[in-house]
Amino acid sequence: MDIIVLQRNATAKDLRHIVKKLEKRGFKANISKGTERTVIGVIGDTSKITEDESNAFGAMQGVENIHRITQPFRLASRDFKPSDTLIRVGKTVIGGKKIQVMAGPCAVENMQTLMNIGREVKKAGASFIRGGAFKPRTSPYSFQGLGEEGMKILAEVREKTGLPVVTEIMDPRDIDVILKYSDVIQIGARNMQNFRLLQEVGEYDKPVLLKRGLSATIKELLMAAEYIMSRGNNKVILCERGIRTFETTTRNTLDLSAVPVLKKLSHLPVIVDPSHGVGIWDLVAPMAKAAIAAGADGLMIEVHTNPEEALSDGEQSLKPANFKTLMKELRLVAKAVGRTI
Amino acid sequence: MDIIVLQRNATAKDLRHIVKKLEKRGFKANISKGTERTVIGVIGDTSKITEDESNAFGAMQGVENIHRITQPFRLASRDFKPSDTLIRVGKTVIGGKKIQVMAGPCAVENMQTLMNIGREVKKAGASFIRGGAFKPRTSPYSFQGLGEEGMKILAEVREKTGLPVVTEIMDPRDIDVILKYSDVIQIGARNMQNFRLLQEVGEYDKPVLLKRGLSATIKELLMAAEYIMSRGNNKVILCERGIRTFETTTRNTLDLSAVPVLKKLSHLPVIVDPSHGVGIWDLVAPMAKAAIAAGADGLMIEVHTNPEEALSDGEQSLKPANFKTLMKELRLVAKAVGRTI
Amino acid sequence: MDIIVLQRNATAKDLRHIVKKLEKRGFKANISKGTERTVIGVIGDTSKITEDESNAFGAMQGVENIHRITQPFRLASRDFKPSDTLIRVGKTVIGGKKIQVMAGPCAVENMQTLMNIGREVKKAGASFIRGGAFKPRTSPYSFQGLGEEGMKILAEVREKTGLPVVTEIMDPRDIDVILKYSDVIQIGARNMQNFRLLQEVGEYDKPVLLKRGLSATIKELLMAAEYIMSRGNNKVILCERGIRTFETTTRNTLDLSAVPVLKKLSHLPVIVDPSHGVGIWDLVAPMAKAAIAAGADGLMIEVHTNPEEALSDGEQSLKPANFKTLMKELRLVAKAVGRTI
Amino acid sequence: MDIIVLQRNATAKDLRHIVKKLEKRGFKANISKGTERTVIGVIGDTSKITEDESNAFGAMQGVENIHRITQPFRLASRDFKPSDTLIRVGKTVIGGKKIQVMAGPCAVENMQTLMNIGREVKKAGASFIRGGAFKPRTSPYSFQGLGEEGMKILAEVREKTGLPVVTEIMDPRDIDVILKYSDVIQIGARNMQNFRLLQEVGEYDKPVLLKRGLSATIKELLMAAEYIMSRGNNKVILCERGIRTFETTTRNTLDLSAVPVLKKLSHLPVIVDPSHGVGIWDLVAPMAKAAIAAGADGLMIEVHTNPEEALSDGEQSLKPANFKTLMKELRLVAKAVGRTI
Repeated sequence: MDIIVLQRNATAKDLRHIVKKLEKRGFKANISKGTERTVIGVIGDTSKITEDESNAFGAMQGVENIHRITQPFRLASRDFKPSDTLIRVGKTVIGGKKIQVMAGPCAVENMQTLMNIGREVKKAGASFIRGGAFKPRTSPYSFQGLGEEGMKILAEVREKTGLPVVTEIMDPRDIDVILKYSDVIQIGARNMQNFRLLQEVGEYDKPVLLKRGLSATIKELLMAAEYIMSRGNNKVILCERGIRTFETTTRNTLDLSAVPVLKKLSHLPVIVDPSHGVGIWDLVAPMAKAAIAAGADGLMIEVHTNPEEALSDGEQSLKPANFKTLMKELRLVAKAVGRTI
Repeated sequence: MDIIVLQRNATAKDLRHIVKKLEKRGFKANISKGTERTVIGVIGDTSKITEDESNAFGAMQGVENIHRITQPFRLASRDFKPSDTLIRVGKTVIGGKKIQVMAGPCAVENMQTLMNIGREVKKAGASFIRGGAFKPRTSPYSFQGLGEEGMKILAEVREKTGLPVVTEIMDPRDIDVILKYSDVIQIGARNMQNFRLLQEVGEYDKPVLLKRGLSATIKELLMAAEYIMSRGNNKVILCERGIRTFETTTRNTLDLSAVPVLKKLSHLPVIVDPSHGVGIWDLVAPMAKAAIAAGADGLMIEVHTNPEEALSDGEQSLKPANFKTLMKELRLVAKAVGRTI
Repeated sequence: MDIIVLQRNATAKDLRHIVKKLEKRGFKANISKGTERTVIGVIGDTSKITEDESNAFGAMQGVENIHRITQPFRLASRDFKPSDTLIRVGKTVIGGKKIQVMAGPCAVENMQTLMNIGREVKKAGASFIRGGAFKPRTSPYSFQGLGEEGMKILAEVREKTGLPVVTEIMDPRDIDVILKYSDVIQIGARNMQNFRLLQEVGEYDKPVLLKRGLSATIKELLMAAEYIMSRGNNKVILCERGIRTFETTTRNTLDLSAVPVLKKLSHLPVIVDPSHGVGIWDLVAPMAKAAIAAGADGLMIEVHTNPEEALSDGEQSLKPANFKTLMKELRLVAKAVGRTI
Repeated sequence: MDIIVLQRNATAKDLRHIVKKLEKRGFKANISKGTERTVIGVIGDTSKITEDESNAFGAMQGVENIHRITQPFRLASRDFKPSDTLIRVGKTVIGGKKIQVMAGPCAVENMQTLMNIGREVKKAGASFIRGGAFKPRTSPYSFQGLGEEGMKILAEVREKTGLPVVTEIMDPRDIDVILKYSDVIQIGARNMQNFRLLQEVGEYDKPVLLKRGLSATIKELLMAAEYIMSRGNNKVILCERGIRTFETTTRNTLDLSAVPVLKKLSHLPVIVDPSHGVGIWDLVAPMAKAAIAAGADGLMIEVHTNPEEALSDGEQSLKPANFKTLMKELRLVAKAVGRTI
């Protein structure tokens, strides 16, 4: 069901023309003549009307605007699948009662550092190791990651700690190496609308952690999930990581209301990355607790044994001791909202 | 301490001119000549340099830009007063271990409705009754509030329930009637930079609940508090209530990271209004819990016995039964973070 | 005409309840049952449905959301008055073929300075002198303006130069002194939703220059105009002056597309303030030219004889020589779009 | 030159530690002890300090924050190359006195339609044909473009009209086909920070039209240009096409102040796409004129012979007759600002 609002001065001919177009496309038109405007209700399965067709209707003579009623996403919607989706990675389940914590450095730097971090976060209760081997950096002169070498280090740390690996893909040409070494493929915020990359990861039976873009609406995030799911991969984990606003005391503005909104609109699990959301290490703990209280199914937290030597994102990384304390506090909050961690 | 960065092509004469100006104002200049730029460190109590003077320096020949190091707020800053400020309203304390909940309808509509709501929220554990008698409405054709009549109803409900009253002032000319009937004066988001109103409420010994503007930065909120405090009234309660962003599924974007940021920069108590933050009643509960987990000292929540007949903000009001359930849940979260409610 | 979209699981009882409410309010309901959703078209003069009532409908059982078709503003709309409104100030007309330029310092500082500036801008072709006697400043420690003393200086400059005066009101209690000395009353961006102030200036037959708020939508600007007009004062001049975005190289983001949008939606004249829009003097000229090319009816430009000694906004003020050059360039652009200056 | 501001409570040991780190990296430290804060001026070629290293300094004990003085982009900066860059495509020059207009449909649909559009825009004075064969679409169910088939149609239209081709690349794997058929490669807004794609197009001697991302700052746009240039391709054309803000009457907010800001910071040519900026065809003409008045070197405008049948972006496309009228008006504005078209 969509609504077409006509201009005040639309003619009877305009109206006929529009109705004819609708009927040709197999829809019925319900015409309401108000005192000020005429409005056409489009009856039929309007979810089949693409954005393009809808825009083209908007360009027709006499049309003021179009209100779409049907959500543009389908596979990702709770209308389509009312029950929560659980995503299994080995023995770990994302989206269930237990909150999963993914922890580790921004970038994989070398074996020793990552192994130390992996052991520390495992001991504190994390259930995934995160770390980037392919790094999207604002500057071409910044550290771009170790590439396949970094992937091997991640796999080695998984071997020793038992923690499954979450790592980012930046280029569809890297899909083979990513599939070989990782357990969850991350799509970063800057690639949320890299549609070719979404289609690529949609071709495989591998969980995808999809981060919300800096200026993406919640509906656009769900449309990006739809891209992946439309290719057959339903294992999508949504991640709120802060949006861009006018506020400058934090790196981004963490939009925690996205958590309950996403849980309402979609059946997919939702996690939160407070480290990128705020960008300052001493704000990570309160926002991690808030994320859980808001209903998140998991957290992604940056941890580094030596933030001041980190090759990336040192400012927002927790030291292992702080991470350990945080995990204890998180357990209490999780319990308060009927979850475990 | 402020920093003046010179343009690449600034001359020695430009530099001398700037240094002379600084010395005339009683400052010392520390000049660093880098390989690319010359930078002047301004030594002395630069917090005395007003925004205007700083801008005027920015207009001088050879100046590229100015980095201010000193925070522009002073009385509101934690540097100035390291310990938390506790604000007493009767026997209630805002800013202490106990989280205070202010509840009630958006607007005062009539005695019966407000009395019912007051009794319900009291029973559920709220510690303040909120309700507007003077209403800032986007449309001149919307209900504008009952005025003094509404203030009397609020006072009567306080009488019967024992709940102190929080209500909004919109016009400095209403100060007498507001002082007469209310316990906490609210400055709404749209008036956060109504400087005359801030100055007016700064003249009295009455707690002020200051809401963050829709597009106000955290520092601007603290400057607005400074306006009030600079007139002698130190009883300012800061309130995060959502900022304006590009996201449209929620009424505003509730910026919960503002809570720990404000607690770090300032000694003033911080509360959160999730009702205006999200604008949809079924998102209020998760965001209220998240606010407490993030460290808020209190909450402001819209409650109405009959939201679909409410004269204002029906969509975002909780019914008493839902409010009661929420209060129970909040108690658990408060406990998890070492607070009571 | 408004549209009420029901939830997927709304019951027949929900529908009946909503229809009854509508009929009680004098509306007819046109019900369209689609394959996925039921939609109610509300027939009748829905412009009488206030925002409040609309929100209350949103709170009813079974309602998913409401699409409003009717614009919430009426007197300000071009639907209501198709022809351009011309506002006369003495012999000057705002909104006609001739573009009007308002120039002067941010704040009135003293007689000598303002007189010099007034003479310079008059010579260059400006048609109004602008300058603030009551100044809204972010910091309580900044220069707050000369008050009535400043108003007298403005009147004296008008006397000598013949330029009518534009100056800002901040407080309804200042209305008498403002009416006495000014020709156009300015409502600043921070007061765009100071509804009491809007109502106050709506009571008099004096042109009002209404600046768009930092985070106000175009529709909210028109609703603020509606506030003034609903009290009887139709002489409202709209002013785009930059909105708040994430971009930081400019003070604000000047939204020039607001000019053609406002001209389409409303009959009121539209001017642009590039000085506040960009905040850096050497960007003022290109944006002033662009404003005219976009269809603005006037400009407001900050000019100061000695920006580095200005008590306010030195960074964004043009020197008289630059202003004179700009006026020459503006004449060419105005001619190119069929206007004069 | 960079500035490190220490925390109020930083110790002498913290200071020594930081200074030692700086010296180890080959920098000198200029220490200014103010009355409130100590500030370190970092002397040496700080442009070599990457974002990562700077962040890591931010994580050091005692550091409050870091002000970077040096721009993070170098090859793209006007400091590096003061004279305007001219980019030649056949006999056409972008960045010179003559303003270049790129016109055509959003997507290549079929030979007949594109040929008709190509002839019309050529006749009206356009100097490039634009059209997408690979389309980034928000929905996986929207038309995704004709791929190589579309590229061949573009080449055929170039053959017949003499207009060089601008078309978008979405995937590094398509580089060969894009290089084969196009004259200018477009990087779309959603791919502005697809760093692998930027690096890929940086490897070839082919002009790149780089669109600003929806929420990219001007500096991030220049950093994206730097990515391309750091690989050896200096032929980058910057394009403002609207940013995402809270305003909803237009599709995006066209930030025309970006034009003079970019011309000041960089030597690269700057063009404007008003069609995507506003998203509504009847607002394109005023914004196109404004873009030229603001100093743009070119325009990109969507034109379609039959917008209501367009497979993409029908709402914002001009019909050939309107485009012809616009070109006439643009000639007048161009002349007024000393340019030709």
